[in-house]
Amino acid sequence: MTTTTNELQTKGEAAKRASRELARASTAVKNRALLAVADALLDRADDVLRANGHDVQGGQEAGLSPAVIDRLTLSRGKIEGIAGDVRTVAGLPDPVGEMIDMRTLPNGLQVGRRRVPLGVIAAIFESRPNVTVDIASLSLKSGNACILRGGKEAIHSNRALAAVIREAIGAAGVPQEAVQLIENTDRALISEMLKMKQYIDLVVPRGGAELIRFVAENATMPVLTGGIGVCHTYVDKAADLAKAVPIVHNAKTRRYSICNALDTLLVHEQIAPQALPEIARAWSEAGVEMRCDERALRILTQAEVPGLNAKPAAPDDFGREFLALVAAVKVVDSLDDALEHIYTYGTGHSEAIITEDYSAAMRFLDEVDSAVVYVNASTQFTDGGQFGLGAEIIDSTQKTIARGPVGLREITTYKWIVFGNGQIRPA
Amino acid sequence: MTTTTNELQTKGEAAKRASRELARASTAVKNRALLAVADALLDRADDVLRANGHDVQGGQEAGLSPAVIDRLTLSRGKIEGIAGDVRTVAGLPDPVGEMIDMRTLPNGLQVGRRRVPLGVIAAIFESRPNVTVDIASLSLKSGNACILRGGKEAIHSNRALAAVIREAIGAAGVPQEAVQLIENTDRALISEMLKMKQYIDLVVPRGGAELIRFVAENATMPVLTGGIGVCHTYVDKAADLAKAVPIVHNAKTRRYSICNALDTLLVHEQIAPQALPEIARAWSEAGVEMRCDERALRILTQAEVPGLNAKPAAPDDFGREFLALVAAVKVVDSLDDALEHIYTYGTGHSEAIITEDYSAAMRFLDEVDSAVVYVNASTQFTDGGQFGLGAEIIDSTQKTIARGPVGLREITTYKWIVFGNGQIRPA
Repeated sequence: MTTTTNELQTKGEAAKRASRELARASTAVKNRALLAVADALLDRADDVLRANGHDVQGGQEAGLSPAVIDRLTLSRGKIEGIAGDVRTVAGLPDPVGEMIDMRTLPNGLQVGRRRVPLGVIAAIFESRPNVTVDIASLSLKSGNACILRGGKEAIHSNRALAAVIREAIGAAGVPQEAVQLIENTDRALISEMLKMKQYIDLVVPRGGAELIRFVAENATMPVLTGGIGVCHTYVDKAADLAKAVPIVHNAKTRRYSICNALDTLLVHEQIAPQALPEIARAWSEAGVEMRCDERALRILTQAEVPGLNAKPAAPDDFGREFLALVAAVKVVDSLDDALEHIYTYGTGHSEAIITEDYSAAMRFLDEVDSAVVYVNASTQFTDGGQFGLGAEIIDSTQKTIARGPVGLREITTYKWIVFGNGQIRPA
Repeated sequence: MTTTTNELQTKGEAAKRASRELARASTAVKNRALLAVADALLDRADDVLRANGHDVQGGQEAGLSPAVIDRLTLSRGKIEGIAGDVRTVAGLPDPVGEMIDMRTLPNGLQVGRRRVPLGVIAAIFESRPNVTVDIASLSLKSGNACILRGGKEAIHSNRALAAVIREAIGAAGVPQEAVQLIENTDRALISEMLKMKQYIDLVVPRGGAELIRFVAENATMPVLTGGIGVCHTYVDKAADLAKAVPIVHNAKTRRYSICNALDTLLVHEQIAPQALPEIARAWSEAGVEMRCDERALRILTQAEVPGLNAKPAAPDDFGREFLALVAAVKVVDSLDDALEHIYTYGTGHSEAIITEDYSAAMRFLDEVDSAVVYVNASTQFTDGGQFGLGAEIIDSTQKTIARGPVGLREITTYKWIVFGNGQIRPA
């Protein structure tokens, strides 16, 4: 057995065992532990910042990009933010224990489902050390033990944060072993982890597309993925441009580096001559580059938009997640044409129609098979906080386990409980 | 491209495309199609029986076991039963369209989840041709297209049944392409199917442990497995033997070849001297072989049970699914001991405690992490029909997708729908 396997085995087994105790912890105990974690993060901010300093220095020496260094770097302000997030989680409703469909059968058996934790959640993530606290607190609140495996560039920070969390929850009466940090940051270890279905009930990859794909393809246990979306907004011929232009603008520019941002704009040919120049004016001012199909480009060129930032789309611009101030733009012949485009190129994340036509709106809601489908609103609303889930673990583009924004309830399961008084089943 | 891949590709694509139309079919249309299938099965029973005769003859020539031949063989009575099951499915509530958690946000957005079909369900099964109709009708009712891949020994029957189903639904206004039968029964094809995640949203293996394991390990899409359970019943020291003996007897003998049948009996040491001989008397009469740990065997030997059918347990008898008139028997020191045994050897299917001790009952419900946990009742109740789900696709021992009896609702998903009137998300 290699050292790697040894650490994984030991910590996996410890997490699984601790999950049995944590599953029975009351909401009061779990909340007390979470508040203790928030306090401890502030009390021990100096230790965490010192450890983080090592990582930042190491990252700079290793020549990591400024963007990665930025995600890696903690500050007292960021730690206060993280502690605040933990307090927010403490304040959320506890999904565990919820009773579903309890009923009495004709034979007197009382049967229902009780919401219970999954057991052990493993998270595999990259350079943001705040994910360590985030996953630990959401797991704890939902009664799940967790196994955290962050990137090697953040290992000192993650070690310091995990130590703070473990001590705080231990002192509050929750088993320390319910939070496990894998300290070996060898990449080969991820493959090993993905085989440990005896200890891990769900694995959540948080990071780039390559990591997510690797985990989805190699995990032997259920995977919850998300965070990747090619989002479409379709401006119908019956759109009200006073709504369409601000919505399209917001969907692209409010934040462009998140998964619910607009990637492709579809515009009905009858409204394109009015809509496209108006949208182009707003976008050009904000620095959005438009990659257009032939018809869209012709309309824009003829419209003489000041400062127009448009060029022909490459074939792979449709179906591409830009995460940048770039949008693909296409003129479509009809609603059917738009639906077919979304069916072909969409990733099932978030799509919107802008229309005043009731039947067109209803058809779009019915026929677009995405996690979130909007009428007359910005796709940037796709978010667990916005939708009232309190927290968001991920935006799922899966159809099973959970779809769309994933909150605490979605990282639990249920068991059937049956109260009898001697019932046997007739032949 | 091989012929195999060709058939899979063509039918996979056809099913996916048909699933878009089926997803929007009203409950009335789906029910009409189901009733048409039930009628057609009776009208064309001769064709089906003729095809089935080929399979049975082929199976006999190939030397299949009498048990397999029995599962394979249809009769007019069996076809009537199958048609009746289809009518039952037509009568079940339609899960599609159910609205969950619809709410209005402070900004006026109306947000909620609508239950929708998954898309395409693939079923891989063995010799029972009734599964063809079963999966097709449950898929249809839940708005899912299906791809059916039965065993080669039933191919003539499956072809005849699929033809009847496709014609009947087509005439009733549901796309025929929503039901696909893979006619190539080459085993290698299963591996190919399990890679087709672009066309298949969920795969359900129905058959032996080997098939289930193969599918679970090789599928690239979500898998719903079940039908395998090592079920424990624990007779606590505070058990009422007037309840315990009939329950234990029923759990083992009502039907022994199904997954919810008792496999291991655990008995508290304080009650074992009374309980074990009583249970052994009932079991011996019914022909149940008891494979006992040392203490249990000593008690039984001393008790002089007439016709006692008991012998020492082999180490692997604990944790074994017998599917036969055989039970492993163990005396435990305490409730904790019983819980630990179940934790170690259980498969998370169905477990029961027999006790009059309130706190022991509640601890068992809390601490046993199985799909169904019983107090004072037979584990043979684990069944979708018994629990009020109307139908049962499978008994799941997974924690995600669905746990325990799986009904129509569990083979659907949801999408978030958002009604806006121009909302944009503030920075």
